[in-house]
Amino acid sequence: MNIHGKPHRSIEAEHATRTARIIDQTLLPHLVEWRELQTMEDAAEAIRVMRVRGAPLIGATAAFGLYFALRDDATDGALQKAYDVLHATRPTAINLRWALDRVKRAVAGRNVGERAEAAWQEALAICEADVVTNHAIGRHGLELFRAIHEKKGDAAATLNVMTHCNAGWLATVDWGTAISPIYQAHDAGMKVHVWVSETRPRGQGASLTAFELKEHGVPHTLIVDNNAGHLLQRGLVDVVIVGTDRVTAHGDVANKIGTYLKALAARAHGVPFYVATPVSTIDWTITDGIRDIPIEQRSAREVTHMPGVNAAGGREEVLITPEGTQARNDGFDVTPGELVTALVTEHGVFPATARALQELQAALQASSAPDIF
Amino acid sequence: MNIHGKPHRSIEAEHATRTARIIDQTLLPHLVEWRELQTMEDAAEAIRVMRVRGAPLIGATAAFGLYFALRDDATDGALQKAYDVLHATRPTAINLRWALDRVKRAVAGRNVGERAEAAWQEALAICEADVVTNHAIGRHGLELFRAIHEKKGDAAATLNVMTHCNAGWLATVDWGTAISPIYQAHDAGMKVHVWVSETRPRGQGASLTAFELKEHGVPHTLIVDNNAGHLLQRGLVDVVIVGTDRVTAHGDVANKIGTYLKALAARAHGVPFYVATPVSTIDWTITDGIRDIPIEQRSAREVTHMPGVNAAGGREEVLITPEGTQARNDGFDVTPGELVTALVTEHGVFPATARALQELQAALQASSAPDIF
Repeated sequence: MNIHGKPHRSIEAEHATRTARIIDQTLLPHLVEWRELQTMEDAAEAIRVMRVRGAPLIGATAAFGLYFALRDDATDGALQKAYDVLHATRPTAINLRWALDRVKRAVAGRNVGERAEAAWQEALAICEADVVTNHAIGRHGLELFRAIHEKKGDAAATLNVMTHCNAGWLATVDWGTAISPIYQAHDAGMKVHVWVSETRPRGQGASLTAFELKEHGVPHTLIVDNNAGHLLQRGLVDVVIVGTDRVTAHGDVANKIGTYLKALAARAHGVPFYVATPVSTIDWTITDGIRDIPIEQRSAREVTHMPGVNAAGGREEVLITPEGTQARNDGFDVTPGELVTALVTEHGVFPATARALQELQAALQASSAPDIF
Repeated sequence: MNIHGKPHRSIEAEHATRTARIIDQTLLPHLVEWRELQTMEDAAEAIRVMRVRGAPLIGATAAFGLYFALRDDATDGALQKAYDVLHATRPTAINLRWALDRVKRAVAGRNVGERAEAAWQEALAICEADVVTNHAIGRHGLELFRAIHEKKGDAAATLNVMTHCNAGWLATVDWGTAISPIYQAHDAGMKVHVWVSETRPRGQGASLTAFELKEHGVPHTLIVDNNAGHLLQRGLVDVVIVGTDRVTAHGDVANKIGTYLKALAARAHGVPFYVATPVSTIDWTITDGIRDIPIEQRSAREVTHMPGVNAAGGREEVLITPEGTQARNDGFDVTPGELVTALVTEHGVFPATARALQELQAALQASSAPDIF
């Protein structure tokens, strides 16, 4: 999507030098700075410190990381070592493993001399497929939005959408997942307004989603996460849509911490709660999200300190608690499938149930879709 | 309670000079600075910019404000003018009006020359009554805690209490409301641990509750507000207890924005959700909290900017959003009585229902309790 009116992707391949460029998202929204990835360690570091984040973008970045490793040493041992390093960068996102497996499969049968080039091509293919996938998610989501909008009984009415964290184009290669239908609704002329939840502790809503929507010109209002229940209670939200880092085969959804509270509040007020996800984010090997999805424990410093820009325009981090305060920082929470109105995928809209997902899996297997096995 | 080991109240009368001292809570937790109130405008400003906050402390401060006004001009006109100015400082807290009415009543029948002294004495009495009230709330809350702790079946087990915002001694004259039973449990030797929710946007949990508990030595862990649902889902919370700014005659509860989300999550997991409140916070004139309680709209800047202490130890405010981001900032939300397990008052524990509160009101009227009429 656009930055300062110019179209970009969140990760851009440089064919001449066989490198990749990313936007350093830790500097957003105050500074747009591109960063070149040249080595496996560059890619791993970018994922680890969240210069790139969002399940699909993490996967794409890891794929380039595996290419860099194979360029330097394409033996089986080096491949596995790089796979392990990249896989260990973030524990929750299923796409990370999926992308690494996809590259590994693409190079496995080849002799050592061909592997790097095959990995490069596979990384590019992963990026292209992600763009196509996200556009399709947006198309299906737009249909849901249209149906909700029609129920309002006034074509000129504003559709109020609430989202959490950042599941926009900055979390993917382009379009985003949860934000893709919002972009498509806005571009189609629907009056859409977004409640952007700031998403403490890291503030991906306040920084990234607000940045994206501003650059694209979509009307939006920032709120603290605490405000979500009140707005739902007062009828100011027509639909909630979020992304996800992992979906179980029974429809449970892991997403940024705080998602579960929004799902509970949406249910209490009969507001649809959609989860936008590529099918690659479905982990077919697990069923019970609360039992089976590992929840990343992140640094207490994310809770006790807040980065931003000071009055002089300089980047600064401020302490917001007493010195030495202990904090717990779960990165994600799990929303049971029963609270999810539906999953919005590139293949259509599905109930978040074991049965519906079983049928989806069977259909995908029958069509030999390349993106999940 | 204690600061650096020395007992304090959040507002302290200076009898010799007929002034009052407050802790400037906007500077906490980084700096403990006392501030002298000498005029009605000092008191109004302190409430308005939240140097004092918390319904009971707002009431006590307003009472001293009315004294300062009457000291300077004790006519009926001046009394009403000061009443109006002080009443307009914050729209949601019922105690503000209650305290002002109490002082007004104490001076109304007197001649002009006696009014200032009567107001001073009434302000002192309001403070003393608040301390007694909060201690009684804590005693009743402690009984509830003991019952929950016993159910754990292990005397050495830790009782995990979650709270929101700051309903500790800094929100009252002493003891606090929601935190009063925590202090009493801790002092009685129960192993109690507090999940402190940071309470965006102003961070009263991260700054004030964490500060209080640290100074008193109560084990606690700070979390972002988003983390509450996850901890409840994982069985890591035994009881939730919060304060309130206004309770309706049917048991609906207005409290800091985000309270409602915690109430929904507590209900979803069968965890008791208690609201600690003096009966003076019950607004007997209204029934439907969602319809009848005005919700204060606060500055967008509280959402877009974050104050704290920078690496050099200086106070600094940082921008955490793109320049010019619009924000909505509801100060409070309303939790329907049906989600409240019980109200913990100085007169005992009552269901948050119209019937129970009607009986409480009748009992209070029969006993001519001075604090609600």
